[in-house]
Amino acid sequence: MMRSCSDSGSSLIKNFSASTASLTVNRAKEIGLLNATEDLYDGVTVEMKEPMESEVFVSLLRASMSKWRQQGKKGVWIKLPIQLSSLVEPVVQEGFRYHHAESDYLMLVHWIPNTPDTLPENASHRVGIGAFVINNNREVLVVKEKNGGFRGTGVWKLPTGVVHEGEDICAAAVREVKEETGIETDFGEVLAFRQTHQSFFRKSDLFFICMLRPRSFDIQKQDSEIQAAQWMPIQEYVDQAYNKEHQAFKYVAEICKNKSEGAYVGFSAMPISTSSSAKNTYLYFNNLNFNKL
Amino acid sequence: MMRSCSDSGSSLIKNFSASTASLTVNRAKEIGLLNATEDLYDGVTVEMKEPMESEVFVSLLRASMSKWRQQGKKGVWIKLPIQLSSLVEPVVQEGFRYHHAESDYLMLVHWIPNTPDTLPENASHRVGIGAFVINNNREVLVVKEKNGGFRGTGVWKLPTGVVHEGEDICAAAVREVKEETGIETDFGEVLAFRQTHQSFFRKSDLFFICMLRPRSFDIQKQDSEIQAAQWMPIQEYVDQAYNKEHQAFKYVAEICKNKSEGAYVGFSAMPISTSSSAKNTYLYFNNLNFNKL
Repeated sequence: MMRSCSDSGSSLIKNFSASTASLTVNRAKEIGLLNATEDLYDGVTVEMKEPMESEVFVSLLRASMSKWRQQGKKGVWIKLPIQLSSLVEPVVQEGFRYHHAESDYLMLVHWIPNTPDTLPENASHRVGIGAFVINNNREVLVVKEKNGGFRGTGVWKLPTGVVHEGEDICAAAVREVKEETGIETDFGEVLAFRQTHQSFFRKSDLFFICMLRPRSFDIQKQDSEIQAAQWMPIQEYVDQAYNKEHQAFKYVAEICKNKSEGAYVGFSAMPISTSSSAKNTYLYFNNLNFNKL
Repeated sequence: MMRSCSDSGSSLIKNFSASTASLTVNRAKEIGLLNATEDLYDGVTVEMKEPMESEVFVSLLRASMSKWRQQGKKGVWIKLPIQLSSLVEPVVQEGFRYHHAESDYLMLVHWIPNTPDTLPENASHRVGIGAFVINNNREVLVVKEKNGGFRGTGVWKLPTGVVHEGEDICAAAVREVKEETGIETDFGEVLAFRQTHQSFFRKSDLFFICMLRPRSFDIQKQDSEIQAAQWMPIQEYVDQAYNKEHQAFKYVAEICKNKSEGAYVGFSAMPISTSSSAKNTYLYFNNLNFNKL
């Protein structure tokens, strides 16, 4: 999974010889200003792609900032691919701060006006799912995990996992059950969700308990993460000591039991059309007595 | 809101004079290895706080990596405050990638084993709320926004906003209504939620429609974001052309109307105790017919 960035990083520095200040200014004049795209919020984004000597870059940036200031621009975004990490320090020295980073790039931002910024916030939450899969014998699909907080506790728990970037919650639940147990399912409902804070670094966590209907029944467990998997009578699942001692687990187990008895209604997933994007958008809501639309 | 990082950034570079390779190695030997804290997943985290010359840092990092490799460590995390942006390039050249960034720091990571990494994913979602506040006359609190996608459309919409870092969804809904309209409310239920993708850069968006009960009725609108605010009969709100033409809005309006007629049950917010953290944790679920706990 590691990128080998060290080679390309060092070679692109060596490609440039030392330059004098006047040469730098001349080069900046020749090249002109940084290429930028405008957005709907009076902002501009510079997406750097090719290597550039720091001094040339700083000259271009200063000239461009001067123009954007005159034009009344507000937010200035600079996206630096990880191969151009040599430009991070100069951009920071010009007064930019970090906005967010992904594996392969760092986004920096500067707010020009002397007013509080209205820049969009960084992503704040990770999203996970727990899957409640119940068969017609009122048995629930449970696993014992090899790693993590449950290792060695002996607790039988619902299959869980992280929702990937760009993935729908309902799709993530189906995928995780298949990966961990080999069972094919159809998404049913979101039964409940939990929000926790400071779960990893400063980030928060949204965890959705999903009810799924099994389409297959023969378990083939994943060996790397799962120590054991089985169908367990729902009452036996609810009665585990761990579920009685931990309030969140106690509630979730009771909600699942209620659902298995037909006495609970969660949120169904409705695909909706949007004008802006070809990607799926789902609205999750209680569709009981909701046949008007 | 801008940090003035340029001064401190440049001064800490000038504080160091050029050094020879042998001096660098000697310094590294004197200082030893990088300070690191261990985690429960066979990982180590180095949190850099004081400025350090790049060459010294790289020597220490290489010696430390060698030790961690021998110890069977897996993930190596390096947290660089923005004041130490000069160390970003050397860390990348040693084979690290970006993991995430906040305004004031960049987190880099390297996975030592020759296996796929099991490092936690970056935060993937921003979270927002829309607030459905209805009074005893079956009037809903609506606003016209000065900026954003609704500017100039004439649409009366629910107050909306972004959930801040570390903020509970139920608290964010109450705060946004107070900020935009001056109305005091109590949180009632989450009526529905929507997941969209690619909403900003690569990130996804979770948007929660919350029903709130008003405790005050005199509107004092916020001038900077809100053009107008009023109490509007629910049917008039539902019948707006925009709400009929956009599927997601049509559903949400119908859900709100159902709720106003007492024919809809969403998810209530239950504070739950957790062992790990003093922060609030809420479980949101349908608590109708759920008095067992």
